[in-house]
Amino acid sequence: MIIVTTTVNFAYLTGVWLETYERFKAVIKCGDYTAVVIPALDVDRVSGNVYPYRDGEDPAEALRQAVANCIDDVVYIDGGTTLRHFEIIKRALPQAQFKLADDLLKEWRAIKRRDEVEKIKAAAVKIRRVIESLETTPGVSERQFAARIYTALYEEGLAPGPILVQFGSNTAMPHLEPTDKKLRRGDAVVLDISASYGGYYADLTKSFFYGEPPDEYLKIYDIVKKAQQAVLNAVRSGARAADVDKAAREVIEAMGYGPYFIHRTGHGLGLEIHEAPDISPNSSDVLKPGMVFTIEPGVYIPGKYGVRLEIDVYLSEGGAEVL
Amino acid sequence: MIIVTTTVNFAYLTGVWLETYERFKAVIKCGDYTAVVIPALDVDRVSGNVYPYRDGEDPAEALRQAVANCIDDVVYIDGGTTLRHFEIIKRALPQAQFKLADDLLKEWRAIKRRDEVEKIKAAAVKIRRVIESLETTPGVSERQFAARIYTALYEEGLAPGPILVQFGSNTAMPHLEPTDKKLRRGDAVVLDISASYGGYYADLTKSFFYGEPPDEYLKIYDIVKKAQQAVLNAVRSGARAADVDKAAREVIEAMGYGPYFIHRTGHGLGLEIHEAPDISPNSSDVLKPGMVFTIEPGVYIPGKYGVRLEIDVYLSEGGAEVL
Repeated sequence: MIIVTTTVNFAYLTGVWLETYERFKAVIKCGDYTAVVIPALDVDRVSGNVYPYRDGEDPAEALRQAVANCIDDVVYIDGGTTLRHFEIIKRALPQAQFKLADDLLKEWRAIKRRDEVEKIKAAAVKIRRVIESLETTPGVSERQFAARIYTALYEEGLAPGPILVQFGSNTAMPHLEPTDKKLRRGDAVVLDISASYGGYYADLTKSFFYGEPPDEYLKIYDIVKKAQQAVLNAVRSGARAADVDKAAREVIEAMGYGPYFIHRTGHGLGLEIHEAPDISPNSSDVLKPGMVFTIEPGVYIPGKYGVRLEIDVYLSEGGAEVL
Repeated sequence: MIIVTTTVNFAYLTGVWLETYERFKAVIKCGDYTAVVIPALDVDRVSGNVYPYRDGEDPAEALRQAVANCIDDVVYIDGGTTLRHFEIIKRALPQAQFKLADDLLKEWRAIKRRDEVEKIKAAAVKIRRVIESLETTPGVSERQFAARIYTALYEEGLAPGPILVQFGSNTAMPHLEPTDKKLRRGDAVVLDISASYGGYYADLTKSFFYGEPPDEYLKIYDIVKKAQQAVLNAVRSGARAADVDKAAREVIEAMGYGPYFIHRTGHGLGLEIHEAPDISPNSSDVLKPGMVFTIEPGVYIPGKYGVRLEIDVYLSEGGAEVL
């Protein structure tokens, strides 16, 4: 038996993004049987075997009924479950032996169903449309520009995730949040935009130069582009994620910019912006058909500029498809 | 000894809003001693007794060092701690007896320090400025209007929380999220805007009629206004929150609209949009100096319109101050 209680894993198993805040919710699976425990006020949101409880009632009672058909002694439990909610589960299953279900859930969630891929693809298409609609005007601040992006994403029907807007030397700091720095001709620009559609995230980064780019900028842009292509060539079912990371790193190192590629090559996308697989030097993940992940090599010259190019790909039996 | 691990309680005890996602963080307090355990990459974000750990190192080791000065057998622990993070705490303190710290934390957080009140006040002032700057134009959809509000809040330096924009009969459904419904003359309008400044939330609601209001709308507006005033009169140190709720309910019931006031009268504000005190009929909370909370009576006529008026107040020894 497995019991999940977090909003994200609940969404994964039911298809419904149900935010219940402090109120307890759970999906129970044993064999082919699935049931949910939810607050009574959300009862019209979920179909199937629903065990609701009202405010003031003990959710443990609903959970006890929901698991009545399950006979497992070992209960695998969502590691994101809070101690507050675990108290409820222990009341419902006082004899159970509990183990964390995290490895299992990570493995399940890494392989996307067709409907999940479609949602990520829709998010990617809409973000790309937003990126193409943006007009860069001199004097706009990073924060103002981020606000415009926010509005445009919202109007596309996306739920915005973290957004980075960086001008000039700020582009050399890959995690820097939008500041009041204003755009001037001669600035490098990095736009890193994540947003979700139907709960599923896409994450894209565009880098360009506002004005006449110096030769070195063109050079590192070209290196990053080639690193991205090397990754696309390396991505296939059965490839080790660490080797895929290495494909990008080797291109950049060969050109002498190895020390300026200061983050991992990519990460899985889904109901969370960062999930499996982890495409980094120390990853033990292996790429499998059904995975969706970013490819985002970058080179950052402190005090000058940075370039990051990020795309999202879906790995099928046939190979990588750029979303 | 108390150990907190959630971002919100970490912020409460350190003043720093540090999002570490999957990575473990904790504040430990025993007597006058306070220490924090954080990822090494966030080490410049927090000052004081800092015990950092690097990726790949066991955070339990840093936690063991952080608690070396504490000798309590009973460890009170943040109920929002995930099972994944609780594993780390158990490794560091294998002999400890754990109890949930939720009642303690709820009580602490309900009484605001001066700096906390100032942040909520700043959020309220800025939201009010946004509300006053908004222009209602016929044909705008609820979603488009929400996007404008989002941008305006962001430009004021606020982090937007949930925003409700409702036109016409949608105003009769107090929790309905923005839809594609367009504004027309003769529509009631409800704008319910929450946003945080320095991590602290304010939450304000304005109701008005776009065009010539019917007599009944004016009547219920007046009733809700009177209910709000009755609450302000009832708010004082030592008052039972249930009695304060009753003050609003009695005004509305006396005018025959009791069945149309379908939610509680208010809730505490702070690092979360909903926290103690709970101003509802069944609340056992008692109002104390230092509390900050909303007063938001409403009347909703299904299929026609609704009115909700929401203000934020700070309760000092001297009485309620509207923020």
